[in-house]
Amino acid sequence: MSKKRTVRLECGKSTQVNYVLGTELSIDVYKPSPPGSQSFEIRFSPGVKCSILHQQCITPVAENATKWVLNKRTVLLVTLEKTSSDVNDNKVIVTFYGDKSDHPIDKMNLQLTAVSISLDVDADRDGKVEENHPNKASWTWGPNGHGAVLLVNCDKDEAFSSKPDNTDNLVNSLSDQKDMSRMVLRTEGPRFLQYGHKLQLYISASDRYKVRVFLKEGVRLVHVLGHQKLSFVTNYMFRKKEYDFFVEGLKFPDKDFDGLVTINLSLLESMTVGEAPVFTDQVVFRMAPWIMTPNTLAPEEVFVCSVANNEKFLKEFKAVVAKTKCKLTICPEYMNRNDRWIQDEIEFGYIEAPHKYFPVVLDSPRDRGLKNFPYQKILGPDFGHVTRTTDEVNSLDSFGNLEVSPPVTVNGKKYPMGRIIIGSAFPSTSKGRNMAKVIRDFLYAQQVQSPVELFSDWLAVGHVDEFMTFVPAPDKKGFRLVLVSPDACCKLFKKLQQEGHGEAQMFEGQNTQSFKINELLSNKILLEENAYVQQCIDWNRDVLKKELRLDEEDIIDIPVMFTLDQEYRQAKSLFPDMVNMIVLGQHLGIPKPFGPLINGKCPLESAVRSALEPLGLDCNFIDDFAAYHLLSGEVHCGSNVRRKSFSLKWWNMEM
Amino acid sequence: MSKKRTVRLECGKSTQVNYVLGTELSIDVYKPSPPGSQSFEIRFSPGVKCSILHQQCITPVAENATKWVLNKRTVLLVTLEKTSSDVNDNKVIVTFYGDKSDHPIDKMNLQLTAVSISLDVDADRDGKVEENHPNKASWTWGPNGHGAVLLVNCDKDEAFSSKPDNTDNLVNSLSDQKDMSRMVLRTEGPRFLQYGHKLQLYISASDRYKVRVFLKEGVRLVHVLGHQKLSFVTNYMFRKKEYDFFVEGLKFPDKDFDGLVTINLSLLESMTVGEAPVFTDQVVFRMAPWIMTPNTLAPEEVFVCSVANNEKFLKEFKAVVAKTKCKLTICPEYMNRNDRWIQDEIEFGYIEAPHKYFPVVLDSPRDRGLKNFPYQKILGPDFGHVTRTTDEVNSLDSFGNLEVSPPVTVNGKKYPMGRIIIGSAFPSTSKGRNMAKVIRDFLYAQQVQSPVELFSDWLAVGHVDEFMTFVPAPDKKGFRLVLVSPDACCKLFKKLQQEGHGEAQMFEGQNTQSFKINELLSNKILLEENAYVQQCIDWNRDVLKKELRLDEEDIIDIPVMFTLDQEYRQAKSLFPDMVNMIVLGQHLGIPKPFGPLINGKCPLESAVRSALEPLGLDCNFIDDFAAYHLLSGEVHCGSNVRRKSFSLKWWNMEM
Repeated sequence: MSKKRTVRLECGKSTQVNYVLGTELSIDVYKPSPPGSQSFEIRFSPGVKCSILHQQCITPVAENATKWVLNKRTVLLVTLEKTSSDVNDNKVIVTFYGDKSDHPIDKMNLQLTAVSISLDVDADRDGKVEENHPNKASWTWGPNGHGAVLLVNCDKDEAFSSKPDNTDNLVNSLSDQKDMSRMVLRTEGPRFLQYGHKLQLYISASDRYKVRVFLKEGVRLVHVLGHQKLSFVTNYMFRKKEYDFFVEGLKFPDKDFDGLVTINLSLLESMTVGEAPVFTDQVVFRMAPWIMTPNTLAPEEVFVCSVANNEKFLKEFKAVVAKTKCKLTICPEYMNRNDRWIQDEIEFGYIEAPHKYFPVVLDSPRDRGLKNFPYQKILGPDFGHVTRTTDEVNSLDSFGNLEVSPPVTVNGKKYPMGRIIIGSAFPSTSKGRNMAKVIRDFLYAQQVQSPVELFSDWLAVGHVDEFMTFVPAPDKKGFRLVLVSPDACCKLFKKLQQEGHGEAQMFEGQNTQSFKINELLSNKILLEENAYVQQCIDWNRDVLKKELRLDEEDIIDIPVMFTLDQEYRQAKSLFPDMVNMIVLGQHLGIPKPFGPLINGKCPLESAVRSALEPLGLDCNFIDDFAAYHLLSGEVHCGSNVRRKSFSLKWWNMEM
Repeated sequence: MSKKRTVRLECGKSTQVNYVLGTELSIDVYKPSPPGSQSFEIRFSPGVKCSILHQQCITPVAENATKWVLNKRTVLLVTLEKTSSDVNDNKVIVTFYGDKSDHPIDKMNLQLTAVSISLDVDADRDGKVEENHPNKASWTWGPNGHGAVLLVNCDKDEAFSSKPDNTDNLVNSLSDQKDMSRMVLRTEGPRFLQYGHKLQLYISASDRYKVRVFLKEGVRLVHVLGHQKLSFVTNYMFRKKEYDFFVEGLKFPDKDFDGLVTINLSLLESMTVGEAPVFTDQVVFRMAPWIMTPNTLAPEEVFVCSVANNEKFLKEFKAVVAKTKCKLTICPEYMNRNDRWIQDEIEFGYIEAPHKYFPVVLDSPRDRGLKNFPYQKILGPDFGHVTRTTDEVNSLDSFGNLEVSPPVTVNGKKYPMGRIIIGSAFPSTSKGRNMAKVIRDFLYAQQVQSPVELFSDWLAVGHVDEFMTFVPAPDKKGFRLVLVSPDACCKLFKKLQQEGHGEAQMFEGQNTQSFKINELLSNKILLEENAYVQQCIDWNRDVLKKELRLDEEDIIDIPVMFTLDQEYRQAKSLFPDMVNMIVLGQHLGIPKPFGPLINGKCPLESAVRSALEPLGLDCNFIDDFAAYHLLSGEVHCGSNVRRKSFSLKWWNMEM
């Protein structure tokens, strides 16, 4: 629907109007008609199109149309299709006639100057700023959707900068500019207009900290909107002009921000006594969400920490990474300050617009030894950083407690980028540990990976990666959910006992207390604890089956036993927790369980191999016993992976 | 889809499970099968229903079914349909058989105690709490929608209270209780269960200030959830029990609150070492939005202030109200402290749930002389109060700048409760006055009357009611938009001039400077000012036509002239602004314009009469000149109306 504009004419007077292409002038013919008028005639110059609107019926006016009967609600609609070369070069004359007479009583004269004004963005998401997209002022999802995209400019393109690019009102470099979305204000028409006209670009006060706009003036980029600047005014001028703007996002979608930002344009006519709006235009951007990458996406870079006692672990870990084409980044001790839990400090994700993509690290409020690593070392050119902070941090705020499923479809609803998984005190609030609300709000607000909350507070550390992971698979849904199973472990040990291996020992040769299978199976408290743990895991299993629409066939049970601490009755794995693995394509780095050796072989490892190898997965057992397991973590807790992005563009999701 | 629960059985062991009606037990048959098993047989007591799930295919198990082949992914699904009279009164036995043999190898025994547990609300919105509504855990709009409704308990049912009912954790009276939504926890089953079981009701921390729950214990109502109380635990007991809860809303939907509140229930099984969740239930409420009432709804109560110099006005005003059946409430001077602008201090609306309705006054942050009136005098039994405050108040925060349209349909989208209309600095931010963000956020968050923002900052006072109103009409869309029109006024005056009445004077007999028509029409600056004002109004006219989908036929132009102040170039009406009228059904109280008298008649009044009387409207011109007009307001600014609610229930809206 074209924008309508009411224009008023007067008999015996020439009214000069600046017409903006794409609008429709609505002119009441009856009210200004002189007394005695019965009919009227319309004459207009070639570029003009006129129609008569009467009782909701629109009739085009032919060039040589005869007279029209004058009725009370007769409205003349006027449009033009080309910009004017000169001021007032289009004309419409309405002549009034009385009863049975060819002698005109009076006439009204409209002089039109047609200009083209359009605020433009890449509303069709092809990386180019097209001209006047019909839907540029709204935003819809899906392959047939429309609406421009903005990136939070949260990387740091210049080495000398100390802060991310969106924290200053400068465009530091071409790289910085490339992270921004182009916006063009196109004007065309005669060199000058009849009256003074101003073009005003403005944003609402509530968008001031969400977006910043720069105007390209020669080689300079001048900050014109955002923060203290709510509007930018320029005089209309020049036959044809393109104002080049660059727009950067400042803030990710969040609880109080749905992600949409509007930039408005007004054409103001300077009248003797004030400035009156005659035309408005609008564009809408959606801030690109922060997107997590599931284990099924190809790894690109692996992170691990070098600490005092993990040399042996590092060697075995490197060997697994060497099987892949991944870059390996080892965070040195001076930087990690003996904090080896790099899974917990950061989560890698990315942001994407049609014109640009870059990874973004989400920095946990956990902030132990690795606190400065993400901001000081990961933040950089085309590598963004975002964080949320809170005063009250607990173990569930660590990002071992933040995972994402592979793509799933649940009762017809598609989640082509998977669903975020976080652990909570839910459904029992007895201990009451939950991930910080600022983080959960942030995750929910990204919209594209609708979170599922699991029950992880039954664990001492309390992270979902202690009882679940996902591995790629060539069949079915393209992945398997891998869950720990005390039940499977008890069954395995009983079988070994029945086969006469009851005296075989766990942890043999390790510098720790060893257990015989017979001892484990005769420890009634331990068995009760594991029955309890199994119930907690089964509750999560049932939630995951429902929320990810999984069948039993999509789930692999991995034998692990747990034990509860006496004080809080929270669970820790009794031996290295094999589900806490690193997944690098088909190569898995799995904590070595140090199970009882039967004929020189570990039946725990064998159980895992026989479950995973048929999927084409390569099981590598890494000794993390002393350096990780005894400190309540494993391989996954001690590593991190930056992965390839989804090939699907998030704006093509159906929401 | 029924809730699935994973249950694990073991050979040679009897497993006791408390089964909750409506769930489905999912039991792996293969994993616990003894070595050599080839097939299995299922026997079960009469109340039990068993099915075999294999490769996504479900086969019901007949009572005398023969043996089933044991496959790797064979799952037994178990449901029951009646609650148990005694513990373990339902049984399922799975017997395993080897190759070519009728001799059983081993068997697994499942003993079931069926209980019914349901957290119930009025999810079908008929005012009654039905049992276990299948969609009680979600909320959808529309006549086929579902989901319970909560009222913000913002009235004050007891005279002795000093604060609204939602500010304390008490239920003061039956009236107070009636404002709450009933929620019932229904349990049924044997008197005791095998193991200790707890029922835990809980809310998330983010809902703690949005909702409060009371449990009825005899005649007492005990506060169990909300604020510091996040969970409420009770032991499972008694053959059949209904726990009666009453839920009150604490907070209206707002920028940071989408209106939905969830209450959760868990059944926790007390195991030797901890409490494991075995069943969860959930109900969702939506907080009823605050709804405004357009001029087309019948008036019920009219408010006006008695001040030092408005006796004459009051007399004429009362005469108009007397024509209606409305109650008239006059706010006395000791209470209004000479602040007569009762339109600006408050806006009447209402909230509604299937079980209860009451009006709610929205109290402006304006806070002049009338500041205490809404809280001290309007807040009361079944009359709620809500406010939003801000430190920086400007004239656009007054509720003369807050109106609502009658129901409209815009390009297929229905707004059956109309659209809220507020005035802003938009589209020119030159002066920058806007309604406070806290108020705009509140209005947008109510969702059901999606706001339209107009440009009102060109006015000195800056209120939309200075240039527009709505009157009921018997035809077309059921109403007319009434707009001021300097253009119509100039045309009228020119016609009078042409007819020889140029020397007729405005304000004759009033204690103020009078003007001749000739003087007005020869005042070039005044005419330019009015051309500017007309452009500003036309901009709003075009926005209203688009956003309310109005035709020219739906609009009535009322002749009013404006003048700009010299300092800020903002507009005030030159004579009493006739559009600033009070609408009481078909009776209108219109500011008397004191136009030039032609043959003893005022042509301005005649113009209004001839435009409105054909709609069956009764035009009453009230002299507000000295007491209101000279102080920059008129009849509408100095009055307020509480109206009937919509017959449409808001939850039946299609959103």
